[in-house]
Amino acid sequence: MKDPIEKVVKQGVSWLADSGPEDDIAISSRIRLARNISAIPFPVNANRDQMKSVLKAVELATERTSCIANPIELKIGEMSMLDRHILLERRLISREMIGGEKNFSAVIFSEGESHGIMVNEEDHIRMQVMKPGLQLGEVWKEIDIMDSLLGQELSFAFSDEIGYLTSCPTNVGTGIRASVMLHLPSLALAEQINGVIQAINKLGLAARGIFGEGTENLGSLYQISNQSTLGETEDQIIEKLESVIKQIISHEKNSRKILLENKREFLLNFVGRAYGILRHSYMISSQEALNSLSALRLGVDMGMFTSVDIHKVNELFLLVQPAHLQKFAAKELEPEERDILRAKIIREKLHQK
Amino acid sequence: MKDPIEKVVKQGVSWLADSGPEDDIAISSRIRLARNISAIPFPVNANRDQMKSVLKAVELATERTSCIANPIELKIGEMSMLDRHILLERRLISREMIGGEKNFSAVIFSEGESHGIMVNEEDHIRMQVMKPGLQLGEVWKEIDIMDSLLGQELSFAFSDEIGYLTSCPTNVGTGIRASVMLHLPSLALAEQINGVIQAINKLGLAARGIFGEGTENLGSLYQISNQSTLGETEDQIIEKLESVIKQIISHEKNSRKILLENKREFLLNFVGRAYGILRHSYMISSQEALNSLSALRLGVDMGMFTSVDIHKVNELFLLVQPAHLQKFAAKELEPEERDILRAKIIREKLHQK
Repeated sequence: MKDPIEKVVKQGVSWLADSGPEDDIAISSRIRLARNISAIPFPVNANRDQMKSVLKAVELATERTSCIANPIELKIGEMSMLDRHILLERRLISREMIGGEKNFSAVIFSEGESHGIMVNEEDHIRMQVMKPGLQLGEVWKEIDIMDSLLGQELSFAFSDEIGYLTSCPTNVGTGIRASVMLHLPSLALAEQINGVIQAINKLGLAARGIFGEGTENLGSLYQISNQSTLGETEDQIIEKLESVIKQIISHEKNSRKILLENKREFLLNFVGRAYGILRHSYMISSQEALNSLSALRLGVDMGMFTSVDIHKVNELFLLVQPAHLQKFAAKELEPEERDILRAKIIREKLHQK
Repeated sequence: MKDPIEKVVKQGVSWLADSGPEDDIAISSRIRLARNISAIPFPVNANRDQMKSVLKAVELATERTSCIANPIELKIGEMSMLDRHILLERRLISREMIGGEKNFSAVIFSEGESHGIMVNEEDHIRMQVMKPGLQLGEVWKEIDIMDSLLGQELSFAFSDEIGYLTSCPTNVGTGIRASVMLHLPSLALAEQINGVIQAINKLGLAARGIFGEGTENLGSLYQISNQSTLGETEDQIIEKLESVIKQIISHEKNSRKILLENKREFLLNFVGRAYGILRHSYMISSQEALNSLSALRLGVDMGMFTSVDIHKVNELFLLVQPAHLQKFAAKELEPEERDILRAKIIREKLHQK
């Protein structure tokens, strides 16, 4: 195929398009595991032959274990910068994987993009599973199977004393990074979001804006994840994260209730105008689009727009990003051209029944 | 009837609701004639008995000549301030008639409000005819008949040397004030409107914003009228005004064409966003409403919104004004309540097919 990314862009992203528990507020759950192959240096110290052999080994293991169904493999070094950014926006690769020209770094992932393996990133292997809504337990079950299957074929670097060995000490031990993407527009409107983030940090978890940080965050999307990978079991880590997530969700729900009771007209106006702009503008900046989509999503969640499907709004958060826009246009775009195309995609998507 | 204004508010305004020549840009044409009854002092110098006799005489003349079909008569002194403002917003009375408690000042008008007579305003009689679009000739024909009919019953103060005598010297002679209301959004967008207004003034005509003045004007609605009433015949005055109006209309049309050719996306965005806001907001200020209605009207004129009737937009310009809003609510409203009700009326009106 001349342009394998073409097919990727056209396929639906299961963790955005499907339903999941609590998915009015919890958009998706993800777990990543960092693993390295023993007897081969970490990628930062490995030579080309060693990286090549890592990729070979992972390809073979993936094929033999079928741990990813109908796998698609893309080699980063063979891709244009735009295409790499497409993968980044779809959360299939990390920002670290974008730059550099490591010929043997690659990503292998399933149709629907729920399962993936980054090869020769910071570690030899970063496998991940993503699902819609809050379902860390289910995600853990699936990635645990994937880990076991790959572990049958590959000898992972492991110390009985501290656990899995990783390139960066912050991942040593379980090598687990579990995260949930939350939509918290009401806490943001009530200006309580910074307090919530501080509380999350005090609990030893990390909270960051998906599009920007703190009050500058666009779209009110936040990712909450564990910080520590050592000294606790995976189950403990996931349980603690999930319990905090549930509290945040309950805070957001409560805040929405108060908003609806005390500032009903403000809320209707906030949501209605966002919909009006998204549905009828012919030029829209990334910032306005993300914030308007966030307001619309709030309205859909609260039952104000029964005609709009929430998964459509989720998908738009992805489609309005720069790389996806430019892939859609099949060329590089000036900022004004991006604003025009962004508005067009949103209009048409919201117009579809 | 307990509240005659109630009925008035519910009835359609023919000069806004009907079609007329060039009514994409020329909303309406109006001619007013100032007349006084000889042998009775001008209202400013008249006593109560004299004003009473003026009203009696006009009522009788109107009835005998049937110069107004199915006339409705409202006495200003018997009305609430809110109701007087309703009449002002509907252009049935002048701002001068609002204040004061002259018991014998009144307005007599037709269903549909195309024909009206103000009694005991600055002059004893100010009769007016309004029609949709640019049709000063037709308006003149009708008001000329009305004037002749009333003149058969009433002895108008007239000097062979200078013509009709009026309270204010600026009206002496013909007593005619002809005006056309124009919608000039494209000239406003192109920042050419002030130049156009200056040119109009140099030609001896008056131009003023309907909602504010100059660049501060809201809704891009302008009234162009004759200044001079002396030394020319009515036909000459009307002909000159109409010829200037036609030039302004052609400027506006040209400006729209350029806008569509050179700044298509800007125009679509400008119009689309205005529609989106009007259709979906739950709170809207008077300023934003007037400017958005103006943008929407431009879009409708240019064929971008075939589903929206231009007369509906015309009517909204009237309905969103403070007195109409409060009459609709049947109580005085705080500014925020006005913004909420204004948005509701606009939403519902635009939602109607």
